[in-house]
Amino acid sequence: MSYNTFGHMFRVTTWGESHGPAIGCVIDGCPPRIALSEADIQPFLDRRRPGQSAFTTQRQEPDQVRILSGVFEGQTTGTPISLVIENTDQRSRDYGAIAQTYRPGHADLVYDLKYGIRDYRGGGRSSARETACRVAAGAVARKVLGSGVRVRGALVQLGPKDIDRTRWDWAEVERNPFFVPDAGVVEDWAEYLAGIRKDGSSIGAVIEIVADGVPAGLGAPIYGKLDADIAAAFMSINAVKGVEIGDGFASASLTGPENADALFMRNGALEFGSNHAGGVLGGISSGQPVVARFAVKPTSSMLTPVPSITKDGVETQVITKGRHDPCVGIRAVPVGEAMMACVLADHLLRHRGQVGG
Amino acid sequence: MSYNTFGHMFRVTTWGESHGPAIGCVIDGCPPRIALSEADIQPFLDRRRPGQSAFTTQRQEPDQVRILSGVFEGQTTGTPISLVIENTDQRSRDYGAIAQTYRPGHADLVYDLKYGIRDYRGGGRSSARETACRVAAGAVARKVLGSGVRVRGALVQLGPKDIDRTRWDWAEVERNPFFVPDAGVVEDWAEYLAGIRKDGSSIGAVIEIVADGVPAGLGAPIYGKLDADIAAAFMSINAVKGVEIGDGFASASLTGPENADALFMRNGALEFGSNHAGGVLGGISSGQPVVARFAVKPTSSMLTPVPSITKDGVETQVITKGRHDPCVGIRAVPVGEAMMACVLADHLLRHRGQVGG
Amino acid sequence: MSYNTFGHMFRVTTWGESHGPAIGCVIDGCPPRIALSEADIQPFLDRRRPGQSAFTTQRQEPDQVRILSGVFEGQTTGTPISLVIENTDQRSRDYGAIAQTYRPGHADLVYDLKYGIRDYRGGGRSSARETACRVAAGAVARKVLGSGVRVRGALVQLGPKDIDRTRWDWAEVERNPFFVPDAGVVEDWAEYLAGIRKDGSSIGAVIEIVADGVPAGLGAPIYGKLDADIAAAFMSINAVKGVEIGDGFASASLTGPENADALFMRNGALEFGSNHAGGVLGGISSGQPVVARFAVKPTSSMLTPVPSITKDGVETQVITKGRHDPCVGIRAVPVGEAMMACVLADHLLRHRGQVGG
Amino acid sequence: MSYNTFGHMFRVTTWGESHGPAIGCVIDGCPPRIALSEADIQPFLDRRRPGQSAFTTQRQEPDQVRILSGVFEGQTTGTPISLVIENTDQRSRDYGAIAQTYRPGHADLVYDLKYGIRDYRGGGRSSARETACRVAAGAVARKVLGSGVRVRGALVQLGPKDIDRTRWDWAEVERNPFFVPDAGVVEDWAEYLAGIRKDGSSIGAVIEIVADGVPAGLGAPIYGKLDADIAAAFMSINAVKGVEIGDGFASASLTGPENADALFMRNGALEFGSNHAGGVLGGISSGQPVVARFAVKPTSSMLTPVPSITKDGVETQVITKGRHDPCVGIRAVPVGEAMMACVLADHLLRHRGQVGG
Repeated sequence: MSYNTFGHMFRVTTWGESHGPAIGCVIDGCPPRIALSEADIQPFLDRRRPGQSAFTTQRQEPDQVRILSGVFEGQTTGTPISLVIENTDQRSRDYGAIAQTYRPGHADLVYDLKYGIRDYRGGGRSSARETACRVAAGAVARKVLGSGVRVRGALVQLGPKDIDRTRWDWAEVERNPFFVPDAGVVEDWAEYLAGIRKDGSSIGAVIEIVADGVPAGLGAPIYGKLDADIAAAFMSINAVKGVEIGDGFASASLTGPENADALFMRNGALEFGSNHAGGVLGGISSGQPVVARFAVKPTSSMLTPVPSITKDGVETQVITKGRHDPCVGIRAVPVGEAMMACVLADHLLRHRGQVGG
Repeated sequence: MSYNTFGHMFRVTTWGESHGPAIGCVIDGCPPRIALSEADIQPFLDRRRPGQSAFTTQRQEPDQVRILSGVFEGQTTGTPISLVIENTDQRSRDYGAIAQTYRPGHADLVYDLKYGIRDYRGGGRSSARETACRVAAGAVARKVLGSGVRVRGALVQLGPKDIDRTRWDWAEVERNPFFVPDAGVVEDWAEYLAGIRKDGSSIGAVIEIVADGVPAGLGAPIYGKLDADIAAAFMSINAVKGVEIGDGFASASLTGPENADALFMRNGALEFGSNHAGGVLGGISSGQPVVARFAVKPTSSMLTPVPSITKDGVETQVITKGRHDPCVGIRAVPVGEAMMACVLADHLLRHRGQVGG
Repeated sequence: MSYNTFGHMFRVTTWGESHGPAIGCVIDGCPPRIALSEADIQPFLDRRRPGQSAFTTQRQEPDQVRILSGVFEGQTTGTPISLVIENTDQRSRDYGAIAQTYRPGHADLVYDLKYGIRDYRGGGRSSARETACRVAAGAVARKVLGSGVRVRGALVQLGPKDIDRTRWDWAEVERNPFFVPDAGVVEDWAEYLAGIRKDGSSIGAVIEIVADGVPAGLGAPIYGKLDADIAAAFMSINAVKGVEIGDGFASASLTGPENADALFMRNGALEFGSNHAGGVLGGISSGQPVVARFAVKPTSSMLTPVPSITKDGVETQVITKGRHDPCVGIRAVPVGEAMMACVLADHLLRHRGQVGG
Repeated sequence: MSYNTFGHMFRVTTWGESHGPAIGCVIDGCPPRIALSEADIQPFLDRRRPGQSAFTTQRQEPDQVRILSGVFEGQTTGTPISLVIENTDQRSRDYGAIAQTYRPGHADLVYDLKYGIRDYRGGGRSSARETACRVAAGAVARKVLGSGVRVRGALVQLGPKDIDRTRWDWAEVERNPFFVPDAGVVEDWAEYLAGIRKDGSSIGAVIEIVADGVPAGLGAPIYGKLDADIAAAFMSINAVKGVEIGDGFASASLTGPENADALFMRNGALEFGSNHAGGVLGGISSGQPVVARFAVKPTSSMLTPVPSITKDGVETQVITKGRHDPCVGIRAVPVGEAMMACVLADHLLRHRGQVGG
């Protein structure tokens, strides 16, 4: 059973391979009468687009999105929104070598084990190129959420290198090629990642996504918890190996009193003393910012040779020449934002359906 | 939109509140002609059952499961399997106090914010008691997986205390009240947790689940990845705040060469040099053991007072008297195993549906 | 892939066999804060209950429903509502004979062909007893729809015998054992059906379900059309072989002008000149009464012998002794009403989710 | 909640409006390693294509299908298959008049009532043009079913005019513009329909779809019955008002003995004496041909004036000038075949998932 659809009421189905003629998605369930045009989507795609700095793949894709359905005279109609992005820079020749061998750590092997066939050009369906469609869908999800909800992401760890959270500045995120919120680390990270790339190596990262303005009450026990859906959404992104909400793994070391987010009344309104929970309690949003993180492993496509096997079961050494991100985690920032937006939009509609207004 | 169903082809719907007459689940999609009786399920419930050591809640529930449908003459028929467990020790009087106040960190508050009503007795639907149904469903899932797949879990961290992985012994897991695989820490942990309890406090934990014998090819790109479903499954367990697969968050600090699981041929069969990936590549099982972990926060029900508010918005201090686990993570071990088994059984059927045999 | 769940947002999962210990259902997605008790459900079960007239099976079942979850202090909580009905009059001995032979026209054969196993006692899962759960769920669906929507059904054809629609009287439906709205046919039908039963035969019927007060806008193109869901809902009822909306099959013989429901303005409100469409246009409710019918074939369990085979492939003659309805269509009236109510409740929530209000 | 997806394991999502740039569909869950190219799909689209006889709309659309994903080197890969068909002959000027008025019997009105917005050009999403995508998906479904299953359809009633079933000839279906299997009626029907068109009127029809070679065991009780899914599939087709399986509504008039399909053994194999059931018992295929019919109402777009209202609530008379089918039922034949193929392919995979090969 294949499953290329995400969400229940705000449902996104993506399709397409890295080196096919195009990629795209169909968004079903979008509310009607929302102003929407390509101009609402393109800026998010531009942010994720490869080839913009020395630290991402040099593949040049304009990633120009077209709306093929579901919008009439500038407004959504409530019918499926079909978005398509043409592939223009498919340098398939780069991949001839890997048609017959498996990159360790890559999906190459398991696609063959599962399906008995694989489109090896650029990783086919398993390519991170698919995430462009998520970003496009996320832009539509943001419109559903409205201006009261703000979803932002940042790189908070590059390989072993942390940030100083006291220097967190959202504006800085848009100023450097890492989406890092701490201006103090940019120079060091640039040097570090240049070294990684020069060595023909790659490195992992941790991304944090924060959603402000999320109304209380989104999420549905037991198997449709808001954080369970966020976890699935993030884990479905290429190369992600871990997900956490609020204090996440650190909360395992806390005592109950340390972890409890005290409740107060301030000017007649509920206020929390802290946000260890990351805005989600019992799977339901509490009205606090929703804070989640995910860990991205290092790209498995790299110039360093690794022992591997061919399709015919002969041992070999693999190096991947093509064009790759030395840290695929960087471009995962807009993807994580998009997935968070999609989860929230879906839950907004689900909540409204069951509970009303 | 409520969602109390887990899985697509092996579908589990749970129902019931902590202090209602009973809890239960309906398992839909189970293959026919599998030998099944209450005796296949009860041992797993007994393992999760409260009141078995000083380190879990003293609520006494026999957790006796009954099969009400879907089994005929000792075999599954392919129709829905209804399982029911009566609640017998509902000491609701313990909860009178929390009817009017919210436990910080607990789902109390958000159920009221979402639904405008909440069954406060024992946490109602948000109680960890619901997990008994997961354990029951997991026992059926194991039968679907067959004896070739073994799903086991262990506590690998208690608060700040780690284990020594070189001493890992699966047999030890069944010998101590913590499900910890390292005999060397049992005494220390017992003393530590007794202290936590005596202080009216609670503590978090990390659980590791390992599935051996999982065939290659399970999992479906893009939004039905095996690890995405595992992440959702674990994150849906009460008090879980983080999930990771293989090296998880540690992989963010690795370089590509460090992280790559080299491939070799050994006696004509594929062999991996390591298992940083945790048995999942591109969302599809590779044939290696599937290894995943989740972090459980400390119980929010405790004797230590925390600032909170009443339903009427008056500030107060909350302490929770009832009967609670000082470390809810301990009993999460069988629950995590059950969720892993359910995910694998679901994907086994999904794979067979699309790809065959 | 089994599928014992009906609906998307108002989701009903039924379970249970005719001669197991109990049958039941789980209703997930019900809005919170709806007043609900067993007394809201029982009258509908009583209406469907067997053994009430000479024209239905003599099996005596009290069909007493119990609510096991999802209701607190007389109100729904938004969590799953588990309903259970015990089986008390399981005269399994009646069915010993059919354990080894297949009733022509019955599901006996195909359950064995599909699953390789079948609970032959009273038809097991394929028994019309399952419909009691639908009726219970339908009672809850009516509460979701509120008092503005009225769902009623009637028998409009018994075998070859029609009614006179000019004498239609909804009050009459509750006065006779056929749920027929035309008092003028009751005596004749009673005599006719008594003859059918005496002959050891059975007969088909047509049921009409009318929903008044359905707001305009329910239903979702393309594959979630209101009438597509009604068609599936009715066709899923035991022994149903045909479904139609509005003029149904008769509309095939109409010209465009004959079929068009003209639109007028009356006192500032939209009014239709006729209702050939049966209240559904393009899969969406128009605000007119939703009118649908379904055809029920004659019961395949009867005393008249029919050529058949045994499980071992030996030719034989089958007669069914047990207790059966000579016209299973009669008791299908409350079942059809229930399914209509479930479809409407589901679409009400689905519409609210996407469009609001 | 919008729902533009059909099926569970073989899942088809369609998108697009009559006068947008293109229409298309995404097929998810198709098994891998099935030979597939545009040449497998195009003949079915050509069969449904408008403008081929005097009896269908004169809109000229090449309906050229392109495969954008999911196929590699001539074989399906198990990933989503994206199909797109450009709209080339969008004479939108025809529809200016109906932007402000509602065609009685058409979806115009209810789209506005539901969504508050509607793409009026050619009916937008409610146009029968959407069915081209179904036909394309059906062609892929046929490949999944393999050559052992044959799905064919025919027009069996045109307005009040029946066929003589003793003259049924499948080969004749491809020889006349009506898809009618009885050569004896072609001339009369041509004359009749020419008259209807000349009168600016339209007429209904009944279509029969027969699937031979369907293996026993497909279909899943209770709410995933094969015939329930067929009913939904057919009822979701534009203008369909009734659906029946086997003897359908006629079975209401039958007695049990008349309706029973006797079972025999012939040369060691099960044989049925008749097929009143239409190949489906208890929702599961029996191995006999699956026979189903659906009724199509007359097109609501016609030159005959009908009383209606404008968007502003002013009474008016509507005539529809554009290009329309005088009997939309004719082109529904390939659409019905496609939906039957999709339902069967879906159930084939669902059955294999639960029960195995």
